[in-house]
Amino acid sequence: MAVRIRKLDSTAPDFRQTLDALLAFEAETDDAIEASVAKILAEVKHRGDVAVLEYTNRFDRIPNGGATSMAAFDVKQAELDAALAALPEAQRAALRTAAGRIRVFHERQKQELNGFTFTEPDGTVLGQRVTPLDRVGIYVPGGKAAYPSSVLMNAIPAQVAGVQEIVMVVPTPDGVKNQMVLAAAAIAGVTRVITIGGAQAVGALAYGTETIPAVDKIVGPGNAYVAAAKRRVFGTVGIDMIAGPSEILVLCDGTTDPDWVAMDLFSQAEHDELAQAILLCPDADYIARVEASIHKLLPTMPRAATITTSLSDRGALVKVRDMVEACDIANAIAAEHLEISAEEPLQWADRIRHAGAMFLGRFSSESLGDYCCGPNHVLPTSRTARFSSPLGVYDFQKRSSVIQVSEQGAQTLGKVAAELAYGEGLQAHARSAELRLKTS
Amino acid sequence: MAVRIRKLDSTAPDFRQTLDALLAFEAETDDAIEASVAKILAEVKHRGDVAVLEYTNRFDRIPNGGATSMAAFDVKQAELDAALAALPEAQRAALRTAAGRIRVFHERQKQELNGFTFTEPDGTVLGQRVTPLDRVGIYVPGGKAAYPSSVLMNAIPAQVAGVQEIVMVVPTPDGVKNQMVLAAAAIAGVTRVITIGGAQAVGALAYGTETIPAVDKIVGPGNAYVAAAKRRVFGTVGIDMIAGPSEILVLCDGTTDPDWVAMDLFSQAEHDELAQAILLCPDADYIARVEASIHKLLPTMPRAATITTSLSDRGALVKVRDMVEACDIANAIAAEHLEISAEEPLQWADRIRHAGAMFLGRFSSESLGDYCCGPNHVLPTSRTARFSSPLGVYDFQKRSSVIQVSEQGAQTLGKVAAELAYGEGLQAHARSAELRLKTS
Repeated sequence: MAVRIRKLDSTAPDFRQTLDALLAFEAETDDAIEASVAKILAEVKHRGDVAVLEYTNRFDRIPNGGATSMAAFDVKQAELDAALAALPEAQRAALRTAAGRIRVFHERQKQELNGFTFTEPDGTVLGQRVTPLDRVGIYVPGGKAAYPSSVLMNAIPAQVAGVQEIVMVVPTPDGVKNQMVLAAAAIAGVTRVITIGGAQAVGALAYGTETIPAVDKIVGPGNAYVAAAKRRVFGTVGIDMIAGPSEILVLCDGTTDPDWVAMDLFSQAEHDELAQAILLCPDADYIARVEASIHKLLPTMPRAATITTSLSDRGALVKVRDMVEACDIANAIAAEHLEISAEEPLQWADRIRHAGAMFLGRFSSESLGDYCCGPNHVLPTSRTARFSSPLGVYDFQKRSSVIQVSEQGAQTLGKVAAELAYGEGLQAHARSAELRLKTS
Repeated sequence: MAVRIRKLDSTAPDFRQTLDALLAFEAETDDAIEASVAKILAEVKHRGDVAVLEYTNRFDRIPNGGATSMAAFDVKQAELDAALAALPEAQRAALRTAAGRIRVFHERQKQELNGFTFTEPDGTVLGQRVTPLDRVGIYVPGGKAAYPSSVLMNAIPAQVAGVQEIVMVVPTPDGVKNQMVLAAAAIAGVTRVITIGGAQAVGALAYGTETIPAVDKIVGPGNAYVAAAKRRVFGTVGIDMIAGPSEILVLCDGTTDPDWVAMDLFSQAEHDELAQAILLCPDADYIARVEASIHKLLPTMPRAATITTSLSDRGALVKVRDMVEACDIANAIAAEHLEISAEEPLQWADRIRHAGAMFLGRFSSESLGDYCCGPNHVLPTSRTARFSSPLGVYDFQKRSSVIQVSEQGAQTLGKVAAELAYGEGLQAHARSAELRLKTS
């Protein structure tokens, strides 16, 4: 099957409708999955470890007749350390370099959020405290989508935030453990690893069981069952965003080697068939050269089939009027990954209001950011960058307001509060303020 | 019906179970409401204004045969200004004072979050940008739960964040507008007021209609239909937390006038019958005096019936061993409002890890914070202060990562990324990094 990537022109009268249709993605809710997840969560909530053990043995096909107790799923620190020690030297060094850089960037995030306090002339003190969550759960997929880089990206911000307990769950289909994932856990500050997965793992983390403590928040990607379970336990615990398919939007002024741009589009398209890769460029000749590079390079890619489907179904090469229009379109798309592959990229970056992460200049390939630049690779998808942020230290912190009203402050504030409280018909609110007024 | 507030002792062997049972609150999902909301949202999505008009005329019983076009629901700026001008002088002044103080506090929040950028020795630049949302929707309940203070608390943080369009929706049952709500909109920076409500208003804000632009986030409280609709549109737009019943937890060392503490408990209990008010105190005699105050003051309260049910069903007076234990219990409760009514309250506040807002010292009644101290009164309920924060400027901002890798940086980062990408079986990621390596 040959790749057939659609070519659009922003001057076409129906361009915006065509673009909207191309961007549209709705996660389908599958009634069978919903019913199954509701049952699993209820079982885990009421039967605890017994239910988790049963589901894990069955769904993950744990060999030798299955595990007989939850203890079998706990991975000891020595096993994590051994996994790290057994990696090829180059891989271990790369993981350590990536972890170190991710830690440095996220330390900067932490420095930004210190809380504040200020004192008013009458002695009233107002402020905001920032504190870490106590305990979080990190979901790591098992099997073919097991990415050690995701362990780093999810665990390190929690550790930097000051979370004391970081519980990682990762299913082991057929009992097979991914050694690189265990090695990543060893260097990312994970405090406990449990080899369970699916909705049963989400339930165990949310409600707690005899052997697994309830956490305060669950983060990390998973399949449709995991996503449905996270939605259902939201409120009992915090969750991160439910991620849609991954996306890259490349804005190019035509000065970058077209092979580089083609490969950058591939690097998104190879994730899965629903991934989306779009190029915006004002130069029609350049677009033709990128298209030629796509045809030239695609046969060399091991994941050519996935890339072909993704580019044909959801990709586009878009001729725009100019780079200013490209920035306007980029704001409407609010892409997860935005590459500005151009000379003096800051002039365009300053026009961007909505993007999960911006990669500026031709040397900033998205793949560098995916692994080791330092910023997080967990980013808002499906246009949610309009209102949400990359995963960060702030996802593992929360704020509390602090209000310490002085006796003098209570005299002025009390009259204002009472006036408004009577206006809203809340007399106890008003009386509570008035009791603090001096009667003389 | 006399109030019968339960008295607990932390030394009782079943204390923690009793407390957990008392705190337990699960919002019930009502299948009829869910089905109704799903239908309303689908109609609004596909039929736009026509559907919003029909539902509003029907559900809000718009008089004179109902409105004939959406224009009838738009409230002009002149009408908002007139509502403000027509308020009694004391009320107008109180609203203005409250708005001014809320603005000052939230400006401090904005100052904290500036983003950052740093340059590495090889010239690679990494950073984080902070930008406001473009357009937000604020839901304000109509009828008896119409609170002008909520207009201030939801709209001002959005305005301070730099949101350009703040669209407020408020239903007008029987066509009656709440003048104090309109007045609050006039001073809170709301850019458009539309008198629609319910799931149809949530749908209009989320999907957009011919006359109402789609927003990026919807905040504000509402009834069960509104809450269900917000849950369903989450992902298409951002939403704030779904609030549970309001709660107050008072930690008292026995030095505060017991009438003050009794009235503070009332001020929460008067909200609704599910509201929760709990006192923790190490002094049994003092607890008895608060109980006496409750019986003395309750008959004077216009909302005595609601307070009686709330205190009897969900309230508690708890004798604790000492203030240190009180702080531990407070962390387990993670209350929306925490009053530390004690001498030198900071010594106890420093032990608190989880609370929506802390009110320190006997002059800091929750009611002052509800209206005019400055910090937000939209706070995490139902133990969600373990992982979430008061509504704030940060809810109307989002972050974007910025990555600008230098040519030299691409040489070192490219090798690390390629190593990890090959390890994960993502060859296009690896090749994309390798293309940036100098071949010499």
